[in-house]
Amino acid sequence: MNMDERLEKQLAFALEIDKEKNILRQTHLSGHGRRENDAEHAWHMAIMAYLLREYSNEEVDIGKVMLMCLIHDIVEIDAGDTYAYDAKGLTTQKAREDAAKERIFSLLPEDQKKELIGLFDEFEEFQTAESKFAHAMDNLQPLMLNNSNGGGDWREHQVNADQVYGRQSKTSLGSKKLYEVTDQIIRENIKQGNIRESD
Amino acid sequence: MNMDERLEKQLAFALEIDKEKNILRQTHLSGHGRRENDAEHAWHMAIMAYLLREYSNEEVDIGKVMLMCLIHDIVEIDAGDTYAYDAKGLTTQKAREDAAKERIFSLLPEDQKKELIGLFDEFEEFQTAESKFAHAMDNLQPLMLNNSNGGGDWREHQVNADQVYGRQSKTSLGSKKLYEVTDQIIRENIKQGNIRESD
Repeated sequence: MNMDERLEKQLAFALEIDKEKNILRQTHLSGHGRRENDAEHAWHMAIMAYLLREYSNEEVDIGKVMLMCLIHDIVEIDAGDTYAYDAKGLTTQKAREDAAKERIFSLLPEDQKKELIGLFDEFEEFQTAESKFAHAMDNLQPLMLNNSNGGGDWREHQVNADQVYGRQSKTSLGSKKLYEVTDQIIRENIKQGNIRESD
Repeated sequence: MNMDERLEKQLAFALEIDKEKNILRQTHLSGHGRRENDAEHAWHMAIMAYLLREYSNEEVDIGKVMLMCLIHDIVEIDAGDTYAYDAKGLTTQKAREDAAKERIFSLLPEDQKKELIGLFDEFEEFQTAESKFAHAMDNLQPLMLNNSNGGGDWREHQVNADQVYGRQSKTSLGSKKLYEVTDQIIRENIKQGNIRESD
């Protein structure tokens, strides 16, 4: 194909990330649907970030948050999805994701590789206002789906309240308001027996 | 649930659009995969828009383009996907999508309903720089997947060159550069017999 090298690289990356649609999460779609994949989850997070941005604790560059949401799981093409409550998987997650990050983003021209790795790292480091709000979406989106399905994902994995709070309480770093809703949802699911009381 | 009405509406909308993940397109995922759904397609388009924005004919507000990509198919939750080469479906598409637009965006608070309908209409009207570039992505993304699969989607539907050019040539309104690539891909697929020569 007769195309300049830069565009060829950009399209190679665009085609590669198609594979993210095959990475399944533990969350099920609403209406007791099938398991969700990473690309759908990222799409959902980005729209929610835009619509709920008024609840961010700090002012955010919303375009940046959306892009962060869209790309935050690309490394799972190689590294797979690590369930939030899979303690063993979590110990090797960083090494697996670092290798994936280098391989996949290297398909891009150097400047865009740098930019997207920067954005990916910023998300992971959980320090900036944008990262904190994007993480709030990463928590709220599956919580919302799971709650709509009567907490089936928690029941299936016999997750307990400490585990759920351990993850979900970080939503308050991005949005105190959305954490209030999160807390209500968790309490109701404990009451209904969908989340086990902690020992 | 004890939540203010505004947030309740926003979350109702967020949950409703989960259904977009069940709307299947005619395009298949790369690697001769399953059929793609609307949410995945929108996710892919938004990332491609960001990475390829340098090829837009006119300068664009890229955050706006991305949001446009993310929401442009939400009406298909009610109206279904209309295949680009389904002449009959296309005659009723507008009426079906107008009703869907009203129902689904009305779940949002009034200001956000207005904003998202405005953005949806702007995409449909194909007049602004952002709309033209978003449409270029709406064409290029499935073209890329289909090409990676040996043009299987065109073969399955026995699409001819006039039909493909009828749709894909509009990419040049958003990006002359990306239309050059599009044209190359179409020519190769005609040569290989994946797209029928026109009568």
